[in-house]
Amino acid sequence: MSLRVLVWNEGVHEANGSPANIAEYYPEGMHGAIAAGLRRLLPDAQVTTATLADPEHGLSEEVLAGTDVILWWGHVAHDQVDDAVVERVKEHVLAGTGLLVLHSGHFSKIFRSLLGTTCSLAWRNEGEQELVWTVKPSHPIAAGIPHPLVIPRQEMYGELFDIPDPDDLVFISSFAGGEVFRSGVTFTRGKGRIFYFSPGDQEYPVYQQAEIQQVLANGVRWAAPAPGDRQVPGVTNPPRQWLL
Amino acid sequence: MSLRVLVWNEGVHEANGSPANIAEYYPEGMHGAIAAGLRRLLPDAQVTTATLADPEHGLSEEVLAGTDVILWWGHVAHDQVDDAVVERVKEHVLAGTGLLVLHSGHFSKIFRSLLGTTCSLAWRNEGEQELVWTVKPSHPIAAGIPHPLVIPRQEMYGELFDIPDPDDLVFISSFAGGEVFRSGVTFTRGKGRIFYFSPGDQEYPVYQQAEIQQVLANGVRWAAPAPGDRQVPGVTNPPRQWLL
Amino acid sequence: MSLRVLVWNEGVHEANGSPANIAEYYPEGMHGAIAAGLRRLLPDAQVTTATLADPEHGLSEEVLAGTDVILWWGHVAHDQVDDAVVERVKEHVLAGTGLLVLHSGHFSKIFRSLLGTTCSLAWRNEGEQELVWTVKPSHPIAAGIPHPLVIPRQEMYGELFDIPDPDDLVFISSFAGGEVFRSGVTFTRGKGRIFYFSPGDQEYPVYQQAEIQQVLANGVRWAAPAPGDRQVPGVTNPPRQWLL
Amino acid sequence: MSLRVLVWNEGVHEANGSPANIAEYYPEGMHGAIAAGLRRLLPDAQVTTATLADPEHGLSEEVLAGTDVILWWGHVAHDQVDDAVVERVKEHVLAGTGLLVLHSGHFSKIFRSLLGTTCSLAWRNEGEQELVWTVKPSHPIAAGIPHPLVIPRQEMYGELFDIPDPDDLVFISSFAGGEVFRSGVTFTRGKGRIFYFSPGDQEYPVYQQAEIQQVLANGVRWAAPAPGDRQVPGVTNPPRQWLL
Repeated sequence: MSLRVLVWNEGVHEANGSPANIAEYYPEGMHGAIAAGLRRLLPDAQVTTATLADPEHGLSEEVLAGTDVILWWGHVAHDQVDDAVVERVKEHVLAGTGLLVLHSGHFSKIFRSLLGTTCSLAWRNEGEQELVWTVKPSHPIAAGIPHPLVIPRQEMYGELFDIPDPDDLVFISSFAGGEVFRSGVTFTRGKGRIFYFSPGDQEYPVYQQAEIQQVLANGVRWAAPAPGDRQVPGVTNPPRQWLL
Repeated sequence: MSLRVLVWNEGVHEANGSPANIAEYYPEGMHGAIAAGLRRLLPDAQVTTATLADPEHGLSEEVLAGTDVILWWGHVAHDQVDDAVVERVKEHVLAGTGLLVLHSGHFSKIFRSLLGTTCSLAWRNEGEQELVWTVKPSHPIAAGIPHPLVIPRQEMYGELFDIPDPDDLVFISSFAGGEVFRSGVTFTRGKGRIFYFSPGDQEYPVYQQAEIQQVLANGVRWAAPAPGDRQVPGVTNPPRQWLL
Repeated sequence: MSLRVLVWNEGVHEANGSPANIAEYYPEGMHGAIAAGLRRLLPDAQVTTATLADPEHGLSEEVLAGTDVILWWGHVAHDQVDDAVVERVKEHVLAGTGLLVLHSGHFSKIFRSLLGTTCSLAWRNEGEQELVWTVKPSHPIAAGIPHPLVIPRQEMYGELFDIPDPDDLVFISSFAGGEVFRSGVTFTRGKGRIFYFSPGDQEYPVYQQAEIQQVLANGVRWAAPAPGDRQVPGVTNPPRQWLL
Repeated sequence: MSLRVLVWNEGVHEANGSPANIAEYYPEGMHGAIAAGLRRLLPDAQVTTATLADPEHGLSEEVLAGTDVILWWGHVAHDQVDDAVVERVKEHVLAGTGLLVLHSGHFSKIFRSLLGTTCSLAWRNEGEQELVWTVKPSHPIAAGIPHPLVIPRQEMYGELFDIPDPDDLVFISSFAGGEVFRSGVTFTRGKGRIFYFSPGDQEYPVYQQAEIQQVLANGVRWAAPAPGDRQVPGVTNPPRQWLL
């Protein structure tokens, strides 16, 4: 069965035409650009999109039951995401659905709920050059990515990034102003694999950059669950002799 | 300044006299036994106790502001812990207060909120022998602990224990029935250090055992924050030239 | 290009017919049984074998240059493996070749050289039941493996296993005598992925067990390097302006 | 008993008066400056020094048996360190002696032997500003260290730093040229705690900087072993009934 990928974007910047250049950089929305990149690089995958404005934010139980990996982009509307939907997404992640959290999604309800920390960071939006350095070249997410990956103009995200120690630290970024950021980190929660990747912003055409699309495609492949049951880990009460 | 330690116990088993032998094993409650062990091993520490029945569960802002390390025991009354109090404790942990979560506290609101997973596990209460093996002997929490530490009778907790990868795996337990459990694990959330230790139960005199008390004292010392600010990590927006 | 897998076995137990039942359990040698399992489960892979008695132990530069993943079984002849060959294998692992180290291979020169510790452990050979518990169900090596995997008779390996903290702890075993062991652990060294798996012994038909073969096949797939350069990480001396 | 600290420096730059300004920056040698900083910040510790030119490089069995933590600085004379001495130091580290490896010590025999990788990196010596960012503020080594710690002029060390995943990543540095480096990392090998810290060079007065001295003092305290046996982990062969 082919990989089923859902690109979720709150879609508010696009709907409001703010910033002004978003329609130029992302005529189909950021989710459209991300989905197009995935379709190019993962031709066998079924890639769909959903936004906040959709019924149940496009994240109904039926949709989630048919999804292997979710990408999540949010920024100005984190609080408008319904708590029940967040809880539903969390259940699916704990049961094995992969999750890629992008850029300002660090403050999304789903990410903070899975990580348990504030996920706060330093930021500055002056269009600085970002250099994305690979520090774990054996990781599948780093396959084929230049060292460094150069993003000409980008918002700065800097340490301290208040996250738990990641399972794997794949990328560290530096910015023209001197800050550093753990820009590519993986986590496991329940049976679900999570990849946070910080590059990408509504003001810059980062998601149109081929190397960025490659990172996302690598991330989707890595986060996809193995075939098998998709149950949230649960309590069991085995009898004593079952193994003897 | 001496270390300020707060032993929190829901105290419901003790109040209800259930199980019947709890008053025999723990005449001052489990919190009383734990506190006594800490006072013996950490004579310079100020050790106090609090329970669910206290106003604000004994976890007012004033109390928390004067606490360096909290130990948490809960079982049948997790749901009765007020969400606002849990949020307050979480803020303090993220700001640096140490937290030791004990035994059935794996299902407490505070632990699940900090870890982001279900924290579910396998269990069986037949008074089996538990062997606690040290797998990271360099860790301060393992200092002076026998290998294995033998607990004559104890509830079985078994894998799969649905937790994120810990920062450090200090102890692994086996049970007479053949199960294994990651029984001593550490985490960091924000500036706070967290140690989960599974031995200990309302039906067995585990907290009266000297080696168990030593583990808890080691854990308290390890989890205590360094002197310095006790602020939750927050967002900053530094100007570009600040470092040049 | 198909995956190229080399199963290396010192082959001394087989050559000496010791223990007596080895020819019964492993008529083609342990390497033969392991290779057969891999061919069954990875039909597209090219699986070959080599032993200590082969010229250059079957690990010439030419062979290694054509290998993606090596499995390593050794026991009584670790010291007879030529240091130059060990160094050659190490170079290839650091450059990206995957390595699975099996059972008594914990004391091989290649494993100790890559890990930096003594790799010592507790052991007892009385044919005890081993239970292999999955503690990271999201890991590809655990896909499709029962929880627990039951090995009816096996040598006991117990903690303290003197290894560095692994990247991932996939399996923990318990034994009838009460010991525990981190029986499935992964490491990264250079660009190479390493998986140590403790079940398997010259006295028991462990490598004939289908679930064990599945673990090894999963491990081979996981350890295989991504396409790309196969250079050992090296020193560079970049000019200052290269990124500006 | 007070903490016994040994600062080891190859001492070749000092002996050769190369670079020319080394006598100005380090009139007592780099080891002298490091030792002075430790004596200031750890007044109860016994701090001694040794160099390559001393008999047995000042690392006799008797000296090592009386040492709790070793700091190691080497650069141009790694190959002149006797293999037998390296093996002796390694035995002591595996048995619990703490080890701080400094700057160009990344290529020392002892560090590479304990880590198992090439420890190669990128470098450029143009006196760039280095910013040392704390990414794990709860770690004792980060206590009291500014964020960032600013080093006005320093050699650049950049990724890829070919090391295994550290136990803890405490500091990440950026350089004026845009590179990043995992500049403060911890490892465990056997019972020994290891801290690698990259700032410090024979051409710049980095070890005279108070914040750098604080990092080293924190590192020494963290790496010091708990009281108890100082035996290398060894093989045991326990009988089956010992625990029953």
